[in-house]
Amino acid sequence: MEARMKVFSDAGFAGSALDTLRQGLDGHELILPKVGTTSVLEQAATEPALLEAEIIVGQPAPESVLASAKLRWLQITTAGYTRYDTPEFMDAARSKGLVITNSSHVYDQPCAEHALAFVLAQARELPLSLRSRINPGTPEWHELRGRYRMLGGQKMVILGYGAIAECLVEMLAPFDIEVVGWRRKARGDEKVPIVSEAELPVVLGSSDHVMNILPDNAATQGFFNSERFAQIKPGAAFYNIGRGTTVDQDALVEALRSGHLGAAWLDVTDPEPLPEDHPLLAFENCHITPHTAGGHLNESETLVWHFLGNFRRFLDGQPLKNRII
Amino acid sequence: MEARMKVFSDAGFAGSALDTLRQGLDGHELILPKVGTTSVLEQAATEPALLEAEIIVGQPAPESVLASAKLRWLQITTAGYTRYDTPEFMDAARSKGLVITNSSHVYDQPCAEHALAFVLAQARELPLSLRSRINPGTPEWHELRGRYRMLGGQKMVILGYGAIAECLVEMLAPFDIEVVGWRRKARGDEKVPIVSEAELPVVLGSSDHVMNILPDNAATQGFFNSERFAQIKPGAAFYNIGRGTTVDQDALVEALRSGHLGAAWLDVTDPEPLPEDHPLLAFENCHITPHTAGGHLNESETLVWHFLGNFRRFLDGQPLKNRII
Repeated sequence: MEARMKVFSDAGFAGSALDTLRQGLDGHELILPKVGTTSVLEQAATEPALLEAEIIVGQPAPESVLASAKLRWLQITTAGYTRYDTPEFMDAARSKGLVITNSSHVYDQPCAEHALAFVLAQARELPLSLRSRINPGTPEWHELRGRYRMLGGQKMVILGYGAIAECLVEMLAPFDIEVVGWRRKARGDEKVPIVSEAELPVVLGSSDHVMNILPDNAATQGFFNSERFAQIKPGAAFYNIGRGTTVDQDALVEALRSGHLGAAWLDVTDPEPLPEDHPLLAFENCHITPHTAGGHLNESETLVWHFLGNFRRFLDGQPLKNRII
Repeated sequence: MEARMKVFSDAGFAGSALDTLRQGLDGHELILPKVGTTSVLEQAATEPALLEAEIIVGQPAPESVLASAKLRWLQITTAGYTRYDTPEFMDAARSKGLVITNSSHVYDQPCAEHALAFVLAQARELPLSLRSRINPGTPEWHELRGRYRMLGGQKMVILGYGAIAECLVEMLAPFDIEVVGWRRKARGDEKVPIVSEAELPVVLGSSDHVMNILPDNAATQGFFNSERFAQIKPGAAFYNIGRGTTVDQDALVEALRSGHLGAAWLDVTDPEPLPEDHPLLAFENCHITPHTAGGHLNESETLVWHFLGNFRRFLDGQPLKNRII
């Protein structure tokens, strides 16, 4: 059993989630900032108390993390961790012997459900069908019925093949849809074939569904540019539930304006939200949700449970879930 | 090998579907009506040529079927078969030794995809989210994220547990949602527990998703009346992808008007389409597609392939698929 530890949280937990966290720490000390943040996407201001903590859960400034002498483990309360994902930070964190985990498990399942909701809404033409009141038996009705494409026999490529993709692939198993993935470094234990970057043009050219779950980093910014969109099969559906910055928004607009893409389903854009006069808002086949794919009822509680599970493992010397370094 | 058989089709197949049918009959005679029908839901007028056929594929009038002296097998080109589903017709058909099959296999998969599209669109609040352009990090954004309910841990009851339900249950397997079914006569080989009619009030009262796939017949008309809706758990989502007549439309309106139902997702209504001033069209949480759940690209070809598969089995003396009697 470890001595009484100091756990700093700037995650903005409140109400029952905060109660759950406090009880779950089981006598270890919880330190809260004077001014909390309310969004899992926001970065907290540096707090002197943070520098005393052995464990941090939240979104502390990278420089605060590196300035902390006692810190042993940081659990980030998001799936993405762009602000920490620089060679400088990661090298410094490694040399300090820091353990860093994220909360991707909390967002995998809802993000995958959001992604599949998009895919099925596209396959069943829900936006069109829900506003259609045509008469069964008419030619227009037959035309609409004929627009639906069953997922069986179609192809999907998932870019940014990680934890969300693994969830999505499990959900797609009953549909007989052919799925391949692409990621920076293949591990070899993925549930679908992982293609190389050199194979991407051919794969994009034969996929009916292009699912972008890329994280935001120096290598992915503007990954979907004019050249990539031109490689996509005409009429295919493009999805983005990763980060808006991975897509050149002008190139996406052009791919929709030219009719090259069949549809776009976006949970993320750049910027967020889009300004009122943004051209993406004008396309009938561009469907946008406001960066809510990871959201779910009791999200704060789920984040706390995920942290407390890792906290037990940390105390017991067990491997942590969602470990980054 | 059977002698050359006469196959009458009033299914309105045209173009490549008709070519496929003709080629697939492999020398057996295809007889077409003088005036075809264009909808799989329409009933054809009686044709003298029909009375000469040993096999019929389509939607012939029940009295024509019974008047035919040579008929051995009728394949209905829909999943539903209301107009044939009377004791009088079935008894007469049995005493003539008729084999009757339907085309439920052609519609199971697209109907189940449509149903799951509804369920996920509801879980991810797509109608609301797709028109929302709120700013990440704001209280409104947190409120929206908190509305989403992950399917895991929720409960669904499927009424009219048949081939579509079996497909849907397979699709729901990755979600850890608890599913039970109800049907007129349990077979014992269903993939989920089948509850009795006496258990329905309790099951409806604990289900977050009430999936109605009931067919239309004397026993199901108005099945969902005021009493049944009152049994449903407050806030639950109600789906109808069966037939509109199984729901008392006034009772459904009242269940929505009172706020008792969380949402309704309907592919079928009574009548179809609803008149412009129908109260169901006024609810923001009532989502209607125009009886298109079974539709899919190349629907006619799929119907022909399904018929030809059974035609081969018929010639070979093998059991037919989707046999009714």
